[in-house]
Amino acid sequence: MKHYDRVALIGLGLIASSMAHAIRAGGLAGEIWGHARSAETRATALEIGLVDRVFETAAEAVAGADLVVLCVPVGAMAAIAAEIAPHLAPGATVTDVGSVKQAVIEAVAPHMPAHVQFIPSHPLAGTEHSGPRSGFATLFVNRWWLVTPLEGNDPAAVARLKGFLAAMGANVEEMEVTRHDLVLAVVSHTPHLIAYTMVGVADHLRRVTHDEVIKYSASGFRDFTRIAASDPTMWRDVFLTNKEATLDILGRFTEELFMLQRAIRMGDGEMLFDYFTRTRAIRRGIIEAGQDTAAPDFGRSPPAETK
Amino acid sequence: MKHYDRVALIGLGLIASSMAHAIRAGGLAGEIWGHARSAETRATALEIGLVDRVFETAAEAVAGADLVVLCVPVGAMAAIAAEIAPHLAPGATVTDVGSVKQAVIEAVAPHMPAHVQFIPSHPLAGTEHSGPRSGFATLFVNRWWLVTPLEGNDPAAVARLKGFLAAMGANVEEMEVTRHDLVLAVVSHTPHLIAYTMVGVADHLRRVTHDEVIKYSASGFRDFTRIAASDPTMWRDVFLTNKEATLDILGRFTEELFMLQRAIRMGDGEMLFDYFTRTRAIRRGIIEAGQDTAAPDFGRSPPAETK
Ligand SMILES: NC(=O)c1ccc[n+]([C@@H]2O[C@H](COP(=O)([O-])OP(=O)(O)OC[C@H]3O[C@@H](n4cnc5c(N)ncnc54)[C@H](OP(=O)(O)O)[C@@H]3O)[C@@H](O)[C@H]2O)c1
Ligand SMILES: NC(=O)c1ccc[n+]([C@@H]2O[C@H](COP(=O)([O-])OP(=O)(O)OC[C@H]3O[C@@H](n4cnc5c(N)ncnc54)[C@H](OP(=O)(O)O)[C@@H]3O)[C@@H](O)[C@H]2O)c1
Repeated sequence: MKHYDRVALIGLGLIASSMAHAIRAGGLAGEIWGHARSAETRATALEIGLVDRVFETAAEAVAGADLVVLCVPVGAMAAIAAEIAPHLAPGATVTDVGSVKQAVIEAVAPHMPAHVQFIPSHPLAGTEHSGPRSGFATLFVNRWWLVTPLEGNDPAAVARLKGFLAAMGANVEEMEVTRHDLVLAVVSHTPHLIAYTMVGVADHLRRVTHDEVIKYSASGFRDFTRIAASDPTMWRDVFLTNKEATLDILGRFTEELFMLQRAIRMGDGEMLFDYFTRTRAIRRGIIEAGQDTAAPDFGRSPPAETK
Repeated sequence: MKHYDRVALIGLGLIASSMAHAIRAGGLAGEIWGHARSAETRATALEIGLVDRVFETAAEAVAGADLVVLCVPVGAMAAIAAEIAPHLAPGATVTDVGSVKQAVIEAVAPHMPAHVQFIPSHPLAGTEHSGPRSGFATLFVNRWWLVTPLEGNDPAAVARLKGFLAAMGANVEEMEVTRHDLVLAVVSHTPHLIAYTMVGVADHLRRVTHDEVIKYSASGFRDFTRIAASDPTMWRDVFLTNKEATLDILGRFTEELFMLQRAIRMGDGEMLFDYFTRTRAIRRGIIEAGQDTAAPDFGRSPPAETK
């Protein structure tokens, strides 16, 4: 079912290309136009049929679109918003998919003309891959897509956007902006920073070689490396723009880590046992809520023959 | 091909039950006898055919075995070693599967009579599940099994044990004891502690509810919860017995975390970007070495319908 006549995707990476596939699969839009920074990405997007037309500038890509989706890193949102503002069609809806909401709103909202609806959003879906070839139509299926409407948003425009997001398979929910940034700092931003740090530590050790770390990574370490392989630009921007909430949660993390470190040093087995028992319950909750598989090792296929 | 006449498995959890399945599948032993602490585990082990005979005491289970495998938590090794010592058959090989080696050697070796070969080992294979029903025959296939022979071990006994471990599908390698404990602190023990901590932080927050954490966990957090669901007894023992190496790596971890935290606070995007770029290379190395799948999200099956 068609939800919009023409969707303009600004940025053509993992999220935009997954949207393009989902839009095509569901017939959710009449046309898809797009823009990306590099000629290479633009050529790829045309070649694999993500978009019907591609433009060198974001300004050209948004002209006449009734839905514009900003799919660039958070730090690139302000410049794009300023560029497209004079070219947005009256009545158009503009949304974004940035992983941080307060900072994107501050970057984008001041540029938006009164005749468009800017309705920020964020799909809680992604993989460790990026670029125009990394997308797939089912990325959003049964995943949350949070919408953080602004005061003054037209309820009809919000409802229409939500219907479109749901048609890509997402579970759409509204959330308040600052709550979004705090919850994401807990479930996503801080875990990513910690994973990056652990992988960095292993990389910097002199006494244990790179080869040993890689060779024996299946003992736990490799689970961290997946998220630490995510796009550096995206994550730099996330941490710089969700600074307060991330630093807050990081502070609590180091507090608890010091407590556990002390328990190890003191040989306090009871404390460790109790702590580790409580964390099991969370895993059980996640599996019961259908947010992960109960299969051992995530149901990974067995490691390849390496001999 | 038969490698031993009778294998005695002491402890009948994930590792022992996986060994039992692999031994059966390959016809690697004439008989399997076993012991576990609880009557329930012993009954299950008989019922599902893990072992041919099961005993209330470890002493009875090892009598006449030519291979004894200690598959109990590291902290239980000393008492088991003392109990079985007088009952071990002359010429028998005793090994263990403990995740820490120096502490197990200190706990077990002093009890071993001169007429047996104690050859410590550690399979780098496991899942987040435990107990006699969690094992499967392919757990060790293409996974490392490290052997840390002791001075004075009979080369023929070591070679025979290695042949048996390889027959279960493992890639067998020798490693020096203290190196083992350091490498494992990096690739396994510290990552597990960090995962436990992150999950604990999420559990303790008042401003973000348990339900929210579970609901939105797919954004990164859930990768941590898998390893933080591992057996609390096993992990308590690992941290208490590999104390020095774990505290050493933890110290480096907090150092780097503080550096990244400072970069966030100061808005040093270049530093963050460079750091995140370097960690990507490690992930690539792991995939190239066949130690993980390149499939997005570990090739997890898509989340279940939750509506
Ligand atoms: N990946 C995830 O897991 C995930 C999940 C939820 C939300 N998000 C959010 O989604 C957005 C996009 O992420 P992604 O994963 O799709 O990234 P990606 O695969 O790295 O793609 C980013 C796209 O943005 C373009 N771009 C970058 N800077 C630009 C600029 N200054 N002007 C114009 N185009 C620019 C890139 O163009 P070139 O290809 O030409 O460089 C590329 O097409 C980010 O805001 C991110 O926070 C990501
Ligand atoms: N899980 C992993 O990922 C992994 C990987 C490599 C090595 N290891 C090592 O393998 C060993 C076993 O781990 P696992 O994962 O197989 O554990 P598990 O599934 O929890 O099973 C442990 C077994 O040991 C028995 N047990 C515990 N305390 C005992 C005691 N005091 N006396 C006699 N039996 C006792 C338990 O008996 P009940 O069932 O009756 O309680 C159970 O059968 C540990 O040393 C661990 O460090 C584990």
